[in-house]
Amino acid sequence: MSITQINPLEALSQALAEDMAAVNTLIRQRMASENAPRIPEVTAHLIEAGGKRIRPMMTLAAARLCGYRGDAHVKLAATVEFIHTATLLHDDVVDESAQRRGRPTANLLWDNKSSVLVGDYLFARAFQLMVEPGNLRALTILSNAAAVIAEGEVLQLTAAQNIATTEDTYFKVIRGKTAALFSAATQVGPVIAGAEESQVQALFDYGDALGICFQIVDDFLDYGGAGDGLGKNLGDDFREGKLTLPVIRAIAAADTTERAFWERTIGKGQQVEGDLDHAMSILARHGTLDSTRQAALDWAARAKSALQALPAHPLRDLLADLADFVVKRVN
Amino acid sequence: MSITQINPLEALSQALAEDMAAVNTLIRQRMASENAPRIPEVTAHLIEAGGKRIRPMMTLAAARLCGYRGDAHVKLAATVEFIHTATLLHDDVVDESAQRRGRPTANLLWDNKSSVLVGDYLFARAFQLMVEPGNLRALTILSNAAAVIAEGEVLQLTAAQNIATTEDTYFKVIRGKTAALFSAATQVGPVIAGAEESQVQALFDYGDALGICFQIVDDFLDYGGAGDGLGKNLGDDFREGKLTLPVIRAIAAADTTERAFWERTIGKGQQVEGDLDHAMSILARHGTLDSTRQAALDWAARAKSALQALPAHPLRDLLADLADFVVKRVN
Repeated sequence: MSITQINPLEALSQALAEDMAAVNTLIRQRMASENAPRIPEVTAHLIEAGGKRIRPMMTLAAARLCGYRGDAHVKLAATVEFIHTATLLHDDVVDESAQRRGRPTANLLWDNKSSVLVGDYLFARAFQLMVEPGNLRALTILSNAAAVIAEGEVLQLTAAQNIATTEDTYFKVIRGKTAALFSAATQVGPVIAGAEESQVQALFDYGDALGICFQIVDDFLDYGGAGDGLGKNLGDDFREGKLTLPVIRAIAAADTTERAFWERTIGKGQQVEGDLDHAMSILARHGTLDSTRQAALDWAARAKSALQALPAHPLRDLLADLADFVVKRVN
Repeated sequence: MSITQINPLEALSQALAEDMAAVNTLIRQRMASENAPRIPEVTAHLIEAGGKRIRPMMTLAAARLCGYRGDAHVKLAATVEFIHTATLLHDDVVDESAQRRGRPTANLLWDNKSSVLVGDYLFARAFQLMVEPGNLRALTILSNAAAVIAEGEVLQLTAAQNIATTEDTYFKVIRGKTAALFSAATQVGPVIAGAEESQVQALFDYGDALGICFQIVDDFLDYGGAGDGLGKNLGDDFREGKLTLPVIRAIAAADTTERAFWERTIGKGQQVEGDLDHAMSILARHGTLDSTRQAALDWAARAKSALQALPAHPLRDLLADLADFVVKRVN
């Protein structure tokens, strides 16, 4: 493992500075619309909100570390960010969220209608962008990812408040809603670089494992985090009745009294003051935050292990560091 | 103009029976999802609701009349229907509709969340389907159409309740929300057939004019129709504050009292019993239903005129008849 003084996300951002500048310019250009003024209003809000652009950086890094010298990776990286942003707009409608990254959400500032339709616009812009390089395999990967994301979101919706949800369903949900875009982002890099099949597979596996790790960490922090400044509030998942790993494992180990507690608070959504604290004490009792932390560490290790099939390259080391960085938030 | 005993939509459906059966089979296959049970529930509801499948028929007819002999047109036709269906699901959320084609809408039977996410799934399935034939020009046309549709929907949203809306904006909205998919549906036919550019242009022009005609007729019927069994209620647009051609023209000709009426009922959305009747009497006074009917007839004539650049073919005659059929509802 290489040692960097700055965090690996910043190091990647610096290593890919020129490419990232091109991606950001392209995103700004393509998010505009001359025909419907509401679109640039909403998208400007999204652009200003920033975000770490981790997914497009994955595409750029994957392409470059496979020796890609063209400029199609910029379009595919922007595509990935557009799909992500469209998903966020629709998620906020579905979750009835009021805040994202510490700022009011678009559905709150405008309305749900605008979020639905501007999300559709961004999806369409993503597809326009991905068509431009003319690489059919990259098109297949990205359009498949879009379908798997939507399936994951629908599955999450129907699993919500269902305390019989299994770990198997949980992993299907997070593979869909989170890992599918990470793995598509990393896989299209070697694909447009014309890399060997073993490298395509390695970067798919890396993105898949990193995405799963990323989501497990997120779900851990919803119970185990403390004001990490990411705009997510402790206990959001609990209040929304989302069945995440720490809770699924606690329900599996529950005694009769605890089962009744989960049935009331998650199953029926009847929550009173003190329920979140009580939920946390049950998680602690069964050690499910610890085992969730361990699951995140395991997936980070898998991500790093996948990279071994790739040639030595400074970007490969940065991707390995990134896996450590993502999982560091649970420690 | 050829004379047919059955209506031209049925005649087209018979002429393209084998292709349409393939499209319907493909639609049923691709609307399913093994991973998220809510998806087949919602999509089965949509399939049972039927619909005339006019858009996929346009693609099939356009390809066949340009001599296409392959089977990629079936995938592109299904793509077009998927984009249309996804748009309907999201429209019903945006319009807060309770009925479509005389049946309860998905947002009412399930919830808005399911309609948003299953709509996203259908968009993604559309993009997967359109990638499969591997025709980059068809991909560009269809992905551009998706963006123009979303722009049209957003523009309609922001123009609602704005009594300063011009005819120019009205035509931008309906070109986006309706004509863009018709013209893409007809244009991809000659494109995959490898037809001459003049035929590509002719079929684009036909689809564009037919789509505009179709929407003007729809907007006319919202004030001028009477129980046509299409599941749309007289006055829906008025109640939703939509600025359609009959109203835009009546506002342009309004005296002070009428202007105050439109400002209250459409601009402020303050409606009381009898307002719809009064609105209709104002439209009658300024003859704007008549002039809207005339606009629809003009666009139908343009659609038929575009067909003259195409070789003689029974399907060409049926498309001409279809334009007459669409506009017949205003007479």
